[in-house]
Amino acid sequence: MKKSKRNIYLKKKPLTEAMSILFEKFDFDSYIGDEEINSTEALGRVLASTIFAASSSPNYHSAAMDGIAVSAVDTYGASESSPKRLKIGSEAVFINTGNPLPDDKDAVIMIEDVHEPGDETVEIIMGAIPFQHVRSMGEDIVATEFLLPKGHIIRPFDIGALLGVGLTKVNVRKRPKIFFIPTGDEIVEPGSGPLTFGKVYESNSAVIGALALEDGVETKRHPVVNDVFENIKSAVADNIDDYDIVIVIAGSSAGTKDFTRSVFDELGEVLVHGINIMPGKPTILGNVKGKLVVGLPGYPVSAIMTYFNVIRPLIAKMLGTGEPPYERVTATVLRDIPSRAGNDEFLQVMISNVEGNIIASPLPRGAGNITTMVKADGVVKIDSLSEGLMKGDEVKPILLRRKDEIERGILAVGSHDICLDLLSADLSLFYPGHSLASVNVGSLGGIIALKNGECHLTGAHLLDPETGQYNTWAVKKYIEEPVTIVTLVHRTQGLIVPKGNPDGISTISDLVKDGVTFANRQRGSGTRILLDYHLAKLEIDPTEIDGYDREEFTHMNVAVRVLGGRASCGLGIAAASAALDLDFIPVDEERYDLIIPQKFRDDERICALIDVINSEKFKNKIGALPGYNTKETGVEFSVE
Amino acid sequence: MKKSKRNIYLKKKPLTEAMSILFEKFDFDSYIGDEEINSTEALGRVLASTIFAASSSPNYHSAAMDGIAVSAVDTYGASESSPKRLKIGSEAVFINTGNPLPDDKDAVIMIEDVHEPGDETVEIIMGAIPFQHVRSMGEDIVATEFLLPKGHIIRPFDIGALLGVGLTKVNVRKRPKIFFIPTGDEIVEPGSGPLTFGKVYESNSAVIGALALEDGVETKRHPVVNDVFENIKSAVADNIDDYDIVIVIAGSSAGTKDFTRSVFDELGEVLVHGINIMPGKPTILGNVKGKLVVGLPGYPVSAIMTYFNVIRPLIAKMLGTGEPPYERVTATVLRDIPSRAGNDEFLQVMISNVEGNIIASPLPRGAGNITTMVKADGVVKIDSLSEGLMKGDEVKPILLRRKDEIERGILAVGSHDICLDLLSADLSLFYPGHSLASVNVGSLGGIIALKNGECHLTGAHLLDPETGQYNTWAVKKYIEEPVTIVTLVHRTQGLIVPKGNPDGISTISDLVKDGVTFANRQRGSGTRILLDYHLAKLEIDPTEIDGYDREEFTHMNVAVRVLGGRASCGLGIAAASAALDLDFIPVDEERYDLIIPQKFRDDERICALIDVINSEKFKNKIGALPGYNTKETGVEFSVE
Repeated sequence: MKKSKRNIYLKKKPLTEAMSILFEKFDFDSYIGDEEINSTEALGRVLASTIFAASSSPNYHSAAMDGIAVSAVDTYGASESSPKRLKIGSEAVFINTGNPLPDDKDAVIMIEDVHEPGDETVEIIMGAIPFQHVRSMGEDIVATEFLLPKGHIIRPFDIGALLGVGLTKVNVRKRPKIFFIPTGDEIVEPGSGPLTFGKVYESNSAVIGALALEDGVETKRHPVVNDVFENIKSAVADNIDDYDIVIVIAGSSAGTKDFTRSVFDELGEVLVHGINIMPGKPTILGNVKGKLVVGLPGYPVSAIMTYFNVIRPLIAKMLGTGEPPYERVTATVLRDIPSRAGNDEFLQVMISNVEGNIIASPLPRGAGNITTMVKADGVVKIDSLSEGLMKGDEVKPILLRRKDEIERGILAVGSHDICLDLLSADLSLFYPGHSLASVNVGSLGGIIALKNGECHLTGAHLLDPETGQYNTWAVKKYIEEPVTIVTLVHRTQGLIVPKGNPDGISTISDLVKDGVTFANRQRGSGTRILLDYHLAKLEIDPTEIDGYDREEFTHMNVAVRVLGGRASCGLGIAAASAALDLDFIPVDEERYDLIIPQKFRDDERICALIDVINSEKFKNKIGALPGYNTKETGVEFSVE
Repeated sequence: MKKSKRNIYLKKKPLTEAMSILFEKFDFDSYIGDEEINSTEALGRVLASTIFAASSSPNYHSAAMDGIAVSAVDTYGASESSPKRLKIGSEAVFINTGNPLPDDKDAVIMIEDVHEPGDETVEIIMGAIPFQHVRSMGEDIVATEFLLPKGHIIRPFDIGALLGVGLTKVNVRKRPKIFFIPTGDEIVEPGSGPLTFGKVYESNSAVIGALALEDGVETKRHPVVNDVFENIKSAVADNIDDYDIVIVIAGSSAGTKDFTRSVFDELGEVLVHGINIMPGKPTILGNVKGKLVVGLPGYPVSAIMTYFNVIRPLIAKMLGTGEPPYERVTATVLRDIPSRAGNDEFLQVMISNVEGNIIASPLPRGAGNITTMVKADGVVKIDSLSEGLMKGDEVKPILLRRKDEIERGILAVGSHDICLDLLSADLSLFYPGHSLASVNVGSLGGIIALKNGECHLTGAHLLDPETGQYNTWAVKKYIEEPVTIVTLVHRTQGLIVPKGNPDGISTISDLVKDGVTFANRQRGSGTRILLDYHLAKLEIDPTEIDGYDREEFTHMNVAVRVLGGRASCGLGIAAASAALDLDFIPVDEERYDLIIPQKFRDDERICALIDVINSEKFKNKIGALPGYNTKETGVEFSVE
């Protein structure tokens, strides 16, 4: 590889400048045309012209009830003491709801109020007032009245209204057409068989395609193209005429195999290479034969952020639907979140309602982490001029989840356990719309968060080395308000080692053996306290342990380090070891509790959670996991 | 028609009881099955089982940046003053983002930090720390971790996460299948040609079908069936095996041509006939061959309310998605709204944000009025035990429109003019997402509403009989705060008469002529004040005018009464007359203004509105209407 082969970024541009360049180059208002379609098939389509009523609705006077049509004047004077008889046919005409009112009639008497002593007459015992039980012509809408504006996205009711005013056809914007070309040697078609080492399934075209579909776009995709300049070039050239936007996925950066830029350069022109958004920076925008071409970053979160910030607004412009319809909330940030100035950063957050305070908790960064988008409730923008958010700042994240679901979410901050995952799954299952999100900061970190009103509950397994008791001591020490402690599970902690235990590790004492590297947990975590407790008992100096300084934040990450050969052993729970098919040497059993402020105990969400914990289904599920014991699961006691 | 042929309602049942009967009869949890589909095609589908990660993501350590893979220990000590050289191939391996990290390397140095003095070595001036710029295996998610719960509706991101953890197939609920059978002699297929007298287009299957589609249902429809028992019966019998729910539209009441009930009776059993919801009361629920059959009321709003209250919850139950996802706001009712006890009434409302107060204003009732659903921002439930809402009551309407759109809505209460419609259309066009809703209560009613903080602005044309001035006098008399008055248009008021003026009406004096009936406007309306002004000048006693007592609330309704032959003349604006192709005798020119509290003048919504009023496009549009003059349109002055 020669340095000269690497692309050189065009000057990275602010997002607004990049958009201005596009708006100068393309006339998005007339980028796609209109078409006439059946009103019955117009759901989700965008009106191409303002709609006025073509006819009145109803377009005749009609009966609003089943009964008889009468002339009100013929009925005057009727009463219970002196009923009146009307001749059927001339003075009284049987009529069903929706039938046109005869020209010489102006009121309807409900069938329930009609007596029928004879075949030729009916009896009434109450007069009718003019227009009683009559739907007047134009009651709903009068011809020529305004119904819906151009640019409106047609909803189910709108279809009814269009038909109601006589419009069986409607003029709508065509659907923009996007063509995706996924590229990359490491990319494999989903469905083409199991993954081999170093390969990943192509997913960006499905994710961005689904977002585009929701935005009213038609999409199609090319099979995965390898990192070969000519192949990518012909995929673009062969399809540019048939689509409104062609998107090349991945290869938009400056690596040796990033060909998107040179393809656009050769077929047309590159307008922008690099935007000051993060994730999403390596985005290319170009023009090939008058069509917009996009080089989309390959990292899934980057691709999504580029879609949100660049492509979605352009689609809205093409369709004439105005600003994308992001719902937002106002939330408070509970700790400093530094961010590099110079880029608009888009940070995924969890959003929780803790006692009416709407809290945004940042999720781990990482443009490659699509599951973070799954966990996220919203996305916060940190402006390029700022160096981050400060504790207490108000932010206005866009929402990725329905607000009512966010409102029903429980936020747990504290120690991680696999049972929390299962609890979260069962909560959502038994109480649809409910959810439990966890932030893993260790037991002690969780207790501090609880004290500061930053979460609903804390998972903790804090051993008191002096008494051998769990958690109560920490609650008494740090938390002033009354809490309830619910035992989630007893679990076995032990040493996680590679399959076959190649280093022959059998006790904590082996951690100082030559060649043994250890995967440690972070300070404040219950597992770390447990380790330090055992080290002190054995009088082992922690600095003698290779790897003691590098901290992992979950049991799973410890196990992953062992599996990946980065450590020869770690302390953690049996379930994490079993999940990755590693070996396990038991060390101790500990109690893992949920600590819940008393004030939340009757909250509908907490009641649902505790209901799940006490269910046989849930107990059986966690009881079946290796290293778990449910002997006290659901046991609850108060600490004042 | 014989009385005996009429159906007799089963006892009307409370909604909850009706639902209980269904839940006893059908096992909705297992009503539809599951199927395996490609993850890439799973948008909007419902997970049939809880998803745990099948593999870790990423499932190998990989480069997070373009650069060189190194062993951190080989780089220690490098600095600007003493750079270090690494051998390409053994100590430094060129690597692109996403590539697997070689087994013996544990860090990546960005290409920007790599110097290349030779072909065989590279130079670095800074040491690397272990795992720098490395995406560790499992960074996103570790195998066996919980990803998504059963019952979750798959979003675009979820598709990426499924593929990311190696799941190219996913087990989802089948989509429920609904079959619609629209019935009615007066019902015509949309697209079968123009409507003849007394006919309406079939629209319920399209509206309810679109709602169901949004809820994840597959729908199909039968062509319109006439009111013939055998035809409806065979339409049900022929299709019941192929669908999960069969819905017969219309004919669910007790009219002579209402056959739904007897069809269900003959093919299976009727479980419920009549529910205490309004609109929606004449709903039939039955069981034919173990399938749910529904008799849906024919009025469009009734059909929608039955869908909302009965069918949508059942679909959610079948799919396992929990409560339907209605968004709600808390709003205040500004006047008493009586409602008949015994039914849960569902009332359509407009929702406005006036100075932070969320206000719900009722729209006119009428189960046949589909355009009311188009205008509505939300639906309020008035409980069957209550006799209505009281002024000041808090309600929690479900929303039919996006909250951000509701927030951007302007509420005008006052006099009606066709230009308000056009203004509303152009506002939505030039400022997508913005809207202007009007409540027509006449000029004086509007001024009182403005005084009470119930709206953003008032349209008024209030003549001061003494000075000949418009509106300023009324503002000074009733409103204490400073306002700005923006002239919308000058317009001609006159007598609206049938085409050809059969009664030979030429002046206001003719209103007392024998045989002339008049369509009057309501007290407090500018038009009524204008009429009374002329009557006083001419010394005519209003009681001599036939029809003076019956009040209409808009110009259009006056014109409709004349068109429908219910009145031989009315006072109104030329545009209303022209819209319905009636004749018009000019009486007077008047000024129609918008009265806006000064405190709202800089509100972004009002600025947008005034911007539209001053646009040439809008002025040209209203200037082209008969009887309108834009000589002072947009002129603005303050009244302190």
